[in-house]
Amino acid sequence: MAAKPISVLVTGANRGLGLEMVRQMLETQRPLNMLFACCRDPDGARAEALQTLAKTHPEIVKVVRMDMADLCSIKKSAQQVGSLLGDKGLNLIINNAAILVHSGITDTTPEDMASSFNTNVIGPMSIIQEFLPYLQAAAKDSGLPGMSCRKAAVVSISSTLGSIESTPQSYEHFKTVPYRVSKAALNMLITCANLELQKDEILCTLLHPGWVRTDMGGANAAIEAQESVQGMLQVMNSMTEKDNGTLQDYNGQRIPW
Amino acid sequence: MAAKPISVLVTGANRGLGLEMVRQMLETQRPLNMLFACCRDPDGARAEALQTLAKTHPEIVKVVRMDMADLCSIKKSAQQVGSLLGDKGLNLIINNAAILVHSGITDTTPEDMASSFNTNVIGPMSIIQEFLPYLQAAAKDSGLPGMSCRKAAVVSISSTLGSIESTPQSYEHFKTVPYRVSKAALNMLITCANLELQKDEILCTLLHPGWVRTDMGGANAAIEAQESVQGMLQVMNSMTEKDNGTLQDYNGQRIPW
Repeated sequence: MAAKPISVLVTGANRGLGLEMVRQMLETQRPLNMLFACCRDPDGARAEALQTLAKTHPEIVKVVRMDMADLCSIKKSAQQVGSLLGDKGLNLIINNAAILVHSGITDTTPEDMASSFNTNVIGPMSIIQEFLPYLQAAAKDSGLPGMSCRKAAVVSISSTLGSIESTPQSYEHFKTVPYRVSKAALNMLITCANLELQKDEILCTLLHPGWVRTDMGGANAAIEAQESVQGMLQVMNSMTEKDNGTLQDYNGQRIPW
Repeated sequence: MAAKPISVLVTGANRGLGLEMVRQMLETQRPLNMLFACCRDPDGARAEALQTLAKTHPEIVKVVRMDMADLCSIKKSAQQVGSLLGDKGLNLIINNAAILVHSGITDTTPEDMASSFNTNVIGPMSIIQEFLPYLQAAAKDSGLPGMSCRKAAVVSISSTLGSIESTPQSYEHFKTVPYRVSKAALNMLITCANLELQKDEILCTLLHPGWVRTDMGGANAAIEAQESVQGMLQVMNSMTEKDNGTLQDYNGQRIPW
């Protein structure tokens, strides 16, 4: 029996890891029904590469306006995605959009803490809430046993910088307090989501993409976006209910909380 | 040689654990120089018990207005405390004030997430920033070797509900998503603070008070505030640099992240 086409949503899809994810999914993750590529400003200069990519597969890629820091915007995106999906479900959400602030304990401002938490934690929570009916529909409709990213899943991009256990090894070089705090918070949020949504057979996991040469990771980073995304897609493709509620890197290695 | 009198600041000191902490410190933690008992509304009905207690030791207990959710208020408190301390340092800050919202993944509002993060995480961060000069002064002035709560320390009240590792065991009965997320975030914040402030010989640790019969813990909780605080003060009294950056319960048992 041929595999059922799946629908996927990626946030922060206009550049870095998100854009590379859209690119590789179009190449390797077939059959695809729809790929919702979300970004804050689809008409801006920073979304040009995504728009160009979208034009090569207009029947699959739908560029969707979504501002992670704004609940109204997330609600609107959900309505738009829902009307495009019709009675089909949404199989996979990749919470990729995030912001990174470089500051330590003494120079972090309350504003940086609040905005990082808003985009990196409250945003993913609102996405889960607003898109939940589509995930539930996908799980019911899939006919697949257990849990998987081809059935119904929320994969959230976290970071080893959000691992409290690993912080002593990296703090000197990567202070990034607002980012670390938001990613530890995200790890807890997704752990709660996993426990609450497993009854619906919706997989909830966390991935660390590695230290990647993107606008966020900087020029000195260890790997290219291509390698990171290749690894993450491989990990996602083999995920089952055993991976529920875990944090793994792009090679499938578990990272401690 | 007689022990040097220490100065201590407790937030959320008008009820529950904070009030009991002030009470027991006055009884057992001598010699005390000053005990700053902070609360949002020192003139309100909910601060009456604290005001009564303060009157029994007017030379030691100073009731200070501090709203954890308001940076201006924290700055003002720091000025007030600084002028009362004169050239003496502040030895111990107990970040106790926190709010608890009972809601799960699907019914938590962005507002509850933001306000819990503001009071439970950004507040403690601002306190560390604003009171840091007094902690540094205490560390320099103490003459004690290593690290301890009688020298210079920030003890932050966290919770086993903030342990991602332990969440599967407790989630069904205590959903409390905004609280859990904020406490996991606090655990990361204090881990960063510990790494950054150890050069100043300032101890930073986290305590889980147990499930306590207070307004927050509810009537069905396992222990009384008296037992919890007794345990926490014992743990604090024996803390050294070996405890830096750890999360322990009121019996001194380590809790995983």
